[in-house]
Amino acid sequence: MNGAESLVHTLIAGGIDTVFANPGTSEMHFVAALDRIPGIHCVLCLDEGVVAGAADAYWRITGKPAATLLHCGPGLANALANLHNARRGRAGIVNIVGDQATYHRPLDAPLTADTEGWARPVSGFLRTATQASLVGADAAEAIAAAKAGMIATLILPADTAWDEGGVVGTPRPPVGRAAVDRGVIDRVATVLRSGEPAILLLGGTTLREGPLAVAGGIAASWGARLRAEMSNARIERGAGRVEIERVPYFIDAALLALAVAKHIILVEAVPPVGFFAYPGKPGRLWPEDCTLHVLARTDQDGPEALDALAQRLAAERATPTARTRPDPAQGPVTPQGFAQSLAALMPERSIIIDESVSFGRGLFPITAQGPAHDWLSLTGGAIGDGIPMAVGAAVAAPDRQVIALQADGSAMYTIAGLWTAARSGLNIVFVVLANRKYAILLHELAGVGANPGRTALDMLDLGRPDLDFVKIAEGMGVPAQAASSLDQFNSLLHASINQPGPSLIELRIG
Amino acid sequence: MNGAESLVHTLIAGGIDTVFANPGTSEMHFVAALDRIPGIHCVLCLDEGVVAGAADAYWRITGKPAATLLHCGPGLANALANLHNARRGRAGIVNIVGDQATYHRPLDAPLTADTEGWARPVSGFLRTATQASLVGADAAEAIAAAKAGMIATLILPADTAWDEGGVVGTPRPPVGRAAVDRGVIDRVATVLRSGEPAILLLGGTTLREGPLAVAGGIAASWGARLRAEMSNARIERGAGRVEIERVPYFIDAALLALAVAKHIILVEAVPPVGFFAYPGKPGRLWPEDCTLHVLARTDQDGPEALDALAQRLAAERATPTARTRPDPAQGPVTPQGFAQSLAALMPERSIIIDESVSFGRGLFPITAQGPAHDWLSLTGGAIGDGIPMAVGAAVAAPDRQVIALQADGSAMYTIAGLWTAARSGLNIVFVVLANRKYAILLHELAGVGANPGRTALDMLDLGRPDLDFVKIAEGMGVPAQAASSLDQFNSLLHASINQPGPSLIELRIG
Repeated sequence: MNGAESLVHTLIAGGIDTVFANPGTSEMHFVAALDRIPGIHCVLCLDEGVVAGAADAYWRITGKPAATLLHCGPGLANALANLHNARRGRAGIVNIVGDQATYHRPLDAPLTADTEGWARPVSGFLRTATQASLVGADAAEAIAAAKAGMIATLILPADTAWDEGGVVGTPRPPVGRAAVDRGVIDRVATVLRSGEPAILLLGGTTLREGPLAVAGGIAASWGARLRAEMSNARIERGAGRVEIERVPYFIDAALLALAVAKHIILVEAVPPVGFFAYPGKPGRLWPEDCTLHVLARTDQDGPEALDALAQRLAAERATPTARTRPDPAQGPVTPQGFAQSLAALMPERSIIIDESVSFGRGLFPITAQGPAHDWLSLTGGAIGDGIPMAVGAAVAAPDRQVIALQADGSAMYTIAGLWTAARSGLNIVFVVLANRKYAILLHELAGVGANPGRTALDMLDLGRPDLDFVKIAEGMGVPAQAASSLDQFNSLLHASINQPGPSLIELRIG
Repeated sequence: MNGAESLVHTLIAGGIDTVFANPGTSEMHFVAALDRIPGIHCVLCLDEGVVAGAADAYWRITGKPAATLLHCGPGLANALANLHNARRGRAGIVNIVGDQATYHRPLDAPLTADTEGWARPVSGFLRTATQASLVGADAAEAIAAAKAGMIATLILPADTAWDEGGVVGTPRPPVGRAAVDRGVIDRVATVLRSGEPAILLLGGTTLREGPLAVAGGIAASWGARLRAEMSNARIERGAGRVEIERVPYFIDAALLALAVAKHIILVEAVPPVGFFAYPGKPGRLWPEDCTLHVLARTDQDGPEALDALAQRLAAERATPTARTRPDPAQGPVTPQGFAQSLAALMPERSIIIDESVSFGRGLFPITAQGPAHDWLSLTGGAIGDGIPMAVGAAVAAPDRQVIALQADGSAMYTIAGLWTAARSGLNIVFVVLANRKYAILLHELAGVGANPGRTALDMLDLGRPDLDFVKIAEGMGVPAQAASSLDQFNSLLHASINQPGPSLIELRIG
């Protein structure tokens, strides 16, 4: 058994069943081992950004890590932006990067790069294998770290893959989350009993149906409010779920939303700060006289902490508000109308991938009127994650409908993900929101106070020529049509949902 | 004057006239300054890999740096693969990366990342601006470093751009290349006079018309052979130029090519090593009993060293062999026929961008029969550089024809570069060599000895569905047609060259 074979056996023993792959020469023994040893589903992606975003979404939906297969330092580099998003969403990924043979590295061949240096900022675990006999043990450690919600990078020099002497790694016992501090429960209970205005700020795994109902019950019983962090890996919402608003993206709106609070109770959430700094505006979004309390850190079990708090406060689980599902909206395309049509037409248990950027700010409240669904947003702000996440979510849940809300500018970073959707017959409707500009940046430029001239507009406008996403999608094997009214959109969305495999709708919103 | 304005004035004072840009929110003051202050040509790219590859090719053609405009850590990360290629080709780039405001960074907002950590492995110069008043001086240093052939990364926190108090940086005197050691000239002259078999291995700036003629004269007078490094930033070749073969990519062929040498004389070249290691094959490509001599290091002036050596040896400049330009080839597509058609049809002074990968190995000798042209290859082995380099070369030399030889798999990493070619009306013919597989990897997998099964083939095959580059190109505004014979290719290439702006030919070679 060579090192690569020991790696594949260790992955299988550790419960890893999916590899998102973009291989190169130094990974050929790993490819050969995946080929010879059945048990792992390999999904080819045409660039590494797709690999990373897909592995992230796979974790968000299944709660277990997928593995990647990346090629040397530059291949890893192409994955870093979406690994950054994955890290911010606390996803677990077994991130396998092939590399030059250990003895070839000192020769500094052209493709040799500082693979570890590039991996370090995104990796909770980082190991370069040194010999075939240790690859299995290294992989077992990486798998355990990934299951604990880290990006676990295992760099696999080619000779550690091809040398004989591989030993299958023994699966490590899963690392549980850090225990909740009972004293903290008491203190937070006292805060809520005080009756002072409080916000429960939820993140991470507390945004699922169960803990949301618990948090909603606490809030209802003791007069607190609920908020989700601005960016979240996954929110369970729609019919039967407790509705929760997010902290707004724009600074002034966020300040307003949090202005009432004397206490903010963080549950798997971090203190709310602005996405960017702006001249003369604060970076911290909570009021000066507001106290932050940490009920559960991001490495602790937030649902358990909420259960304990509810028990202490004798709060029942909240009953979700009954909501009537709307009919599809008609007429010109507006964010509100689009959200209404989505709520009307999305199937039960849909997975919504949200990289809708500027057009998408208003979609959240109205879509809550839809059936039960999951909402996955961009957790780290690195655009180009929408199409990849749609791929990973659809691989993770082949029986569910994925709907990807995709801004046009952001789509172009990882557009090759469409091909993987076609190759794998994934149930995804890509909705490209085509305003043909970097609308968010035009907004930001206006904030700078300048009256933009030709040079600035040329850097923020995606027209001349217009991107034709119908042709681009068809070129990658994804059937596509354009819509410029909600009526057209409704019928395309309905038809797309009712056919197997991927499709794309270019919705002209300009 | 704010920091961003001081930056733009410093760039202009330093002779920087082109910025390849993919801006984000934290760069809005830089965008506004580029807008207000005339003198810099801004080229919008839809992903950062295009930005980096374009800046690299701009250097290769003009010998002066362009600037980039990248957004925060993840935006830089997307550029790293092509910055790696640029570093390997010793390109100078003023690499400007916006980032969180200095006082906002400690708040660890979602998009905050280790920008310096990611930049370090590719940067010869790395500086994070700390205040607006120093941005100009920082930029002047970065420009000087870039002019010396480094990637000079200047990280620009948003507040250092928007704060008032900017001071224009004074241009630094250019840093010349390290002097050639006269003793080395003597020693190498002695080696060549000895009559023992010797190879002059040329790289860097020695592969231009003048130094090639000098090296060719030395070789002819003293019975040495010429070789270029395997990967080169730019070779001037074709009619009127001394022909030079490269060290082959495949190990066995490279060993054979260098087997005759008792001496290898490195001129702006590094010792020849395998691109990858293979079990049982050597990594060093020169014979055991061969001595390496460094006539000029990569930071020294190779043409000057060759001139000095020629003088010492009383060698005349070589007269290039007279070659007859062939007619276009007809019939089925073969590498030889394709090369012949290229040699027949490429205009004088064409710039050939070579990311042809497996199909391209045989193109080099026959294309030397074409008119005078430049050949730019992939210097660092990170695929996805061909389309970006074509963009940068065409921006650098609008009066010249760029022909990009582009493997299909590699094209998909940075396909959005086609849009910039359309937007800017660049004179590029993209020839996508569509074999619908990662052919080089199938070759490598065969080398592993395995009889590949479905899993392996699925990771190396680009079919099901086939990529339709005609539609993809049209979707980005580039006119495109497909050819499956040389006759069709010839007429499309002829027509493409004779129309302004970009076009794409999908050449089916499978």
